[in-house]
Amino acid sequence: MTKVVLIGAGHLAFHFYRQLEACCKVSLTQWYNRSLEKIDFAKTNVAVTNQFSQIKDADLYLICVSDDAIKNVTEKIQTEGLIAHCAGGVPLSRISSPSRKAVFYPLQTFTKERDLSFDKLPFCIETSNSKDQNLLKDLAKALGGFAYEFDSEKRALIHLIAVFINNFGNQLLFLGSELSKKNNIPFYMFSSLIEETYKKALDNGPENSQSGPASRRDQKTIDKHLEMLTDKSLKKLYLNLTTSIQKRNER
Amino acid sequence: MTKVVLIGAGHLAFHFYRQLEACCKVSLTQWYNRSLEKIDFAKTNVAVTNQFSQIKDADLYLICVSDDAIKNVTEKIQTEGLIAHCAGGVPLSRISSPSRKAVFYPLQTFTKERDLSFDKLPFCIETSNSKDQNLLKDLAKALGGFAYEFDSEKRALIHLIAVFINNFGNQLLFLGSELSKKNNIPFYMFSSLIEETYKKALDNGPENSQSGPASRRDQKTIDKHLEMLTDKSLKKLYLNLTTSIQKRNER
Repeated sequence: MTKVVLIGAGHLAFHFYRQLEACCKVSLTQWYNRSLEKIDFAKTNVAVTNQFSQIKDADLYLICVSDDAIKNVTEKIQTEGLIAHCAGGVPLSRISSPSRKAVFYPLQTFTKERDLSFDKLPFCIETSNSKDQNLLKDLAKALGGFAYEFDSEKRALIHLIAVFINNFGNQLLFLGSELSKKNNIPFYMFSSLIEETYKKALDNGPENSQSGPASRRDQKTIDKHLEMLTDKSLKKLYLNLTTSIQKRNER
Repeated sequence: MTKVVLIGAGHLAFHFYRQLEACCKVSLTQWYNRSLEKIDFAKTNVAVTNQFSQIKDADLYLICVSDDAIKNVTEKIQTEGLIAHCAGGVPLSRISSPSRKAVFYPLQTFTKERDLSFDKLPFCIETSNSKDQNLLKDLAKALGGFAYEFDSEKRALIHLIAVFINNFGNQLLFLGSELSKKNNIPFYMFSSLIEETYKKALDNGPENSQSGPASRRDQKTIDKHLEMLTDKSLKKLYLNLTTSIQKRNER
C-alpha cells in the first residue's frame, strides 16, 4: 500500500486529508504543518508533526504549501521517496531536493469548508523519473480521479485557463451581484440563469452557446448598457468582452 | 381559464409553446408566426396562423419577437386583451397598441433544442394597468415560476446583469476552450472546475469565493500569465479582470 505524508494545511491539504483517510488503497502515514494547531484535530487518525526532523519514511510526500514555500519546504525533507508538489503554475524543477521529483496537480478549486467529490477529478502529473508515473496514476485512480501527463509548460497553460474559468468567471458573478445590491435587485433571482449558463456551455460547448446583444450586434442595446454603467472600469470591461465576442463572430 | 395567443417562433416562443401546452391552468388558443413553416408541426395541438387579420380573441398576447419588431407587431394586433412583450431591455412603452400593455420577461437563456424546466423561474412583470398584475402573476405561477414586479428602468438593469452573467460568462469559457484547443489540451478536463465554480458562487456567494493569483496579489504568476498570452486582446482582458478583482479586495 502506498504510504503518503501530507505537508501543509491549506484548503487543498484538508481535502487531501479527507480523501486519503477515506481511501483504503492508500495509507496516510503522517501530516506535517508548521503550526500544529491547524491539524491537531486529526491526531487520533494520523500522526501529526510540526518538525521536519520527525518526518517519517513514505513512498510519497504531497507538498500542499503556497507556491513560494515549495522550494524551502522540499529542501528540508530528507527522503528517497517521491516528492510531489500540487501547484499548477510552478515548474517541477522548483522542488530542490536531489530525490525523485514530481507534480500532482488537481484541476479544481478547493475550499476547506465545502464538501467536494474527487470523482472524475483530473490530476495533471509530471515526474522527473518516468518510473514514478505509475505511482501517481494509481493514486489518482485510488482517489476516484484520472491522471493526465503534462510537462511544466503545458501545466502552466492549464493553470492560466483555470484562472479564466474560475477566478474571472467568479469575478463576473461578483460584479453582477454588486450591481444587483446597488439597485435593490435580489441576486438569487439570477440563480437559474447562472446554472443554465454553465450547464449549456458544458453540454453544447461554449462555442455554440453565445447569445445576447454583442453576438447579434445589437448596437442600440450595447449603447444603452454602456450609458447605464456609470463605473469607468465596468464600462471598459463591458466593451472589452463585447469586442471579444464580436471578434470571434467575425472569424 | 386564461386564453393565450403566442406571437413569434424564436427560442423563447418554442419554450413557451411547450410549457403552455403542458399547463392545465392556461389555454393556448393560437400561435402566430410570419412564416407558417416554423410552427406547422404544432397545428394538431393548436391553431396556427401567419395572418394578423385572423388572430383570435384572447386574454393575453405573448409577444416573443425580436426587440426591434415589437413596435410593428403590436401595432397590428387589434384587441382589448392584454399585450405583453417578453424582452428584458425593451421598455413597456414600446408596445404601440392603445390597449392594455405589459411585460412578461423570463430571466433565463433559452435554446430551442434544450429541455429547460420553468420550475422556480423568475418572471419580471410590469403592467400599464395595475389590475392586470394578477393575470401575469397567476401565469408565472401556473408555469411553475415566480413573478417579480419591476419597472422598465430596473428591468433594463436586470438585463444588463444577465449579460455579465450569461453572455460574458460564456465568453470566458469560450476563450478558455480556444486556448485549450490551440495547445492540444482537452477542454473536457475543465468540466469539474466549471461546475464547482458556479456551484460555489451560488452556495457561498461570489463575494466569498474568489481565489487565485489576482486576489492573493501573486505578481510573479500574473506576469508569467501575461507573458504566455501572446494575443493582445486576451492580455488586455486578463489585466482588466485582474485589476477588477484587486480593486474589490482594496475596499
